Amino acid sequence: MPAKLPTSVQNLIDSFARLPGIGPKMASRLTFHLLQKSAYDINRFISALEGIQNGINDCAICGHIAEAEHCAICTDDQRSARQICVVEGPLDVIALEKTGSYTGRYHVLGGVLSPIDGIGPDQLRIRLLIERLQNSEESIEIIIATNPSLEGEATAGYIQQQLQNNKLLELHTLTRIARGLPMGSDLEYADPATLLRALEGRRSL
Amino acid sequence: MPAKLPTSVQNLIDSFARLPGIGPKMASRLTFHLLQKSAYDINRFISALEGIQNGINDCAICGHIAEAEHCAICTDDQRSARQICVVEGPLDVIALEKTGSYTGRYHVLGGVLSPIDGIGPDQLRIRLLIERLQNSEESIEIIIATNPSLEGEATAGYIQQQLQNNKLLELHTLTRIARGLPMGSDLEYADPATLLRALEGRRSL
Repeated sequence: MPAKLPTSVQNLIDSFARLPGIGPKMASRLTFHLLQKSAYDINRFISALEGIQNGINDCAICGHIAEAEHCAICTDDQRSARQICVVEGPLDVIALEKTGSYTGRYHVLGGVLSPIDGIGPDQLRIRLLIERLQNSEESIEIIIATNPSLEGEATAGYIQQQLQNNKLLELHTLTRIARGLPMGSDLEYADPATLLRALEGRRSL
Repeated sequence: MPAKLPTSVQNLIDSFARLPGIGPKMASRLTFHLLQKSAYDINRFISALEGIQNGINDCAICGHIAEAEHCAICTDDQRSARQICVVEGPLDVIALEKTGSYTGRYHVLGGVLSPIDGIGPDQLRIRLLIERLQNSEESIEIIIATNPSLEGEATAGYIQQQLQNNKLLELHTLTRIARGLPMGSDLEYADPATLLRALEGRRSL
């Protein structure tokens, strides 16, 4: 019978292994790394975990993470209210913010339609998006930026349909981010679905 | 200017990113995963971290992690004191224990000789190994199981020399774990150094 690890060590390994993308080996390595660290380092980690337990919630307008009722983007007057970029999660907001070129607002759905996982329209912030658009007298460009996956495309299609049903596309416009070859990639190795999108999305020079 | 994340969220991302093998993207993903978790899950993580701050130390005999002065392996009477397997770290003990076939004791060096990192013989538990052997009147097989890396091989060579200098190989015997082709691998793709070791280590059938 192999020797057991101390309970406290095994507990921390289990805690790490419950996180997404961390397997049992990686969890062990992280735990033993921390075991060699000073109390200061471990306390800093504990404080960071305690920190997110208080005062972090979803923005009441767009659903992005916020320290107050509304997030830093929704309360920023510099950002245009004429554009709403619809994304799956807060990490997508961060990725788009890193481009430094988008100056509109966001709408975070909180996932994608996925009947297998029991996620239907009511589990996402789609109703809230429609209300946002209904309350606007100005014309807004809605940029759908869900992932180019099966679920992401289906969610984009569903949102389009809902906007049409609610007659919102008479005032507002709907766009979808481009799907095509990623920068630095090789046409030779691109998959047929991506190439098809790249051809369909071609623009005159 | 891209919108900033709440300080508490950024703090946790930074804490994760300081761990080995976790880059900034992975750190963000883990943080946002925890943000969606209940207070119970986060508290469990915090307790696990607090747990390793108390009562975990190095075994006074072998250097493996222990909850008391001596580790679970050194205090286990069922395990033979006639074999000591010398490894670099506690994770190596765990890996060897998983084979379920080794019934001897261990000696955890706490690293390998690495002059560039300022790690010489005094930073490792080599002196302690020699004392362990000097205190034994029975013949012990010392199995060197440092990694088959440049530093691991150099450390194995240094230990061999030290045992010879201290005339310990008159009573005790020294072995080294086999280096060769890993199970399930392909001879065609093996590197020359591994193939050389595999040839040198051949045994009659």
